[in-house]
Amino acid sequence: MGALYTLYIQTEGHIQMQDITAEVQRLAGECGIASGICTLFLPHTTAGLLISENRDPYLAVDLTRAVHMLTGDESGYHNLEGNFAAHLASMLTGVSLTVPVEDGRLALGSWQSIYLMEFDGSRKRKVRVKFMEDL
Amino acid sequence: MGALYTLYIQTEGHIQMQDITAEVQRLAGECGIASGICTLFLPHTTAGLLISENRDPYLAVDLTRAVHMLTGDESGYHNLEGNFAAHLASMLTGVSLTVPVEDGRLALGSWQSIYLMEFDGSRKRKVRVKFMEDL
Amino acid sequence: MGALYTLYIQTEGHIQMQDITAEVQRLAGECGIASGICTLFLPHTTAGLLISENRDPYLAVDLTRAVHMLTGDESGYHNLEGNFAAHLASMLTGVSLTVPVEDGRLALGSWQSIYLMEFDGSRKRKVRVKFMEDL
Repeated sequence: MGALYTLYIQTEGHIQMQDITAEVQRLAGECGIASGICTLFLPHTTAGLLISENRDPYLAVDLTRAVHMLTGDESGYHNLEGNFAAHLASMLTGVSLTVPVEDGRLALGSWQSIYLMEFDGSRKRKVRVKFMEDL
Repeated sequence: MGALYTLYIQTEGHIQMQDITAEVQRLAGECGIASGICTLFLPHTTAGLLISENRDPYLAVDLTRAVHMLTGDESGYHNLEGNFAAHLASMLTGVSLTVPVEDGRLALGSWQSIYLMEFDGSRKRKVRVKFMEDL
Repeated sequence: MGALYTLYIQTEGHIQMQDITAEVQRLAGECGIASGICTLFLPHTTAGLLISENRDPYLAVDLTRAVHMLTGDESGYHNLEGNFAAHLASMLTGVSLTVPVEDGRLALGSWQSIYLMEFDGSRKRKVRVKFMEDL
């Protein structure tokens, strides 16, 4: 135990959902955890972590539209880089997630995947992955 | 330590706030934790976990109105099941929460309760509850 | 290990971002953790915890505007205290955050700070800080 892992993810679009469940599950196997928790942390300010449905092909389209609806256009903001909407979307999704681990597996629901949400891509992103094992 | 508990909650309305604080506190007693953390995880994609006020009788009404305001109607979305608003509300609240445990009690503020937020009910929901004790 | 720390923060404005990164890092040093996780928890219902950018002087202005845009005015709500917008903003940011700890340091990105978000100030606020060390 003890290692803090890093996943490197190259995003492709300006807004994009990238399913990272398999990579996180692979790290759980690599560290050999049986039961405990997994904390995911994103060291970025214009991206987010989201657990959401993995079977509806329209979810990414709908979420992109929703992000635009919720964050508005940039014209009313003062942000120096012109990417405040991405910061706001990051605030709404969050950069930290904790998932229980049971029998060496992430205890996700059968319809759930873990997504890196890119809101200001394309960029090279990092996801930090930390496992804490039961006593 | 070590057990990953499951609470089974039958929700009643399409949108509903269900206070689960007492059940989670009961599990803390059952596992015998003195101090550490409690991670709650919802294995669903159209519900959320929320810590909010427990004394204003209008909070549920106001939150329901706010969820409608923030998620809009379904007409603009492509989601196959016609419940994208519920997915978006789940994204805005989140499905994972971690609360410190002190002297065997959840370290909540005196006005706080933990709520299962149903956004696409009524359904039978599960809440996974994991305690990690201090070394 | 084991202590659950409390930071006391006096907020100044009705809506305010208060950077608490240095105080949390100081507590990490005080408890002597080498690697593990840090869970922050806010025992309040009209404030939030946010990890966001620390170098754009306009971020606080933009976030304040965004909070008003997302929460609307109070006129349509029934909340007894007339501060439902603050409860909704708290729901959108959340009151719980977990950050990995590596080599005794919070594993934040170089542009990230941890903020206490006051949405109904000025008030005296508490932030609970819990460290869990690796086995």
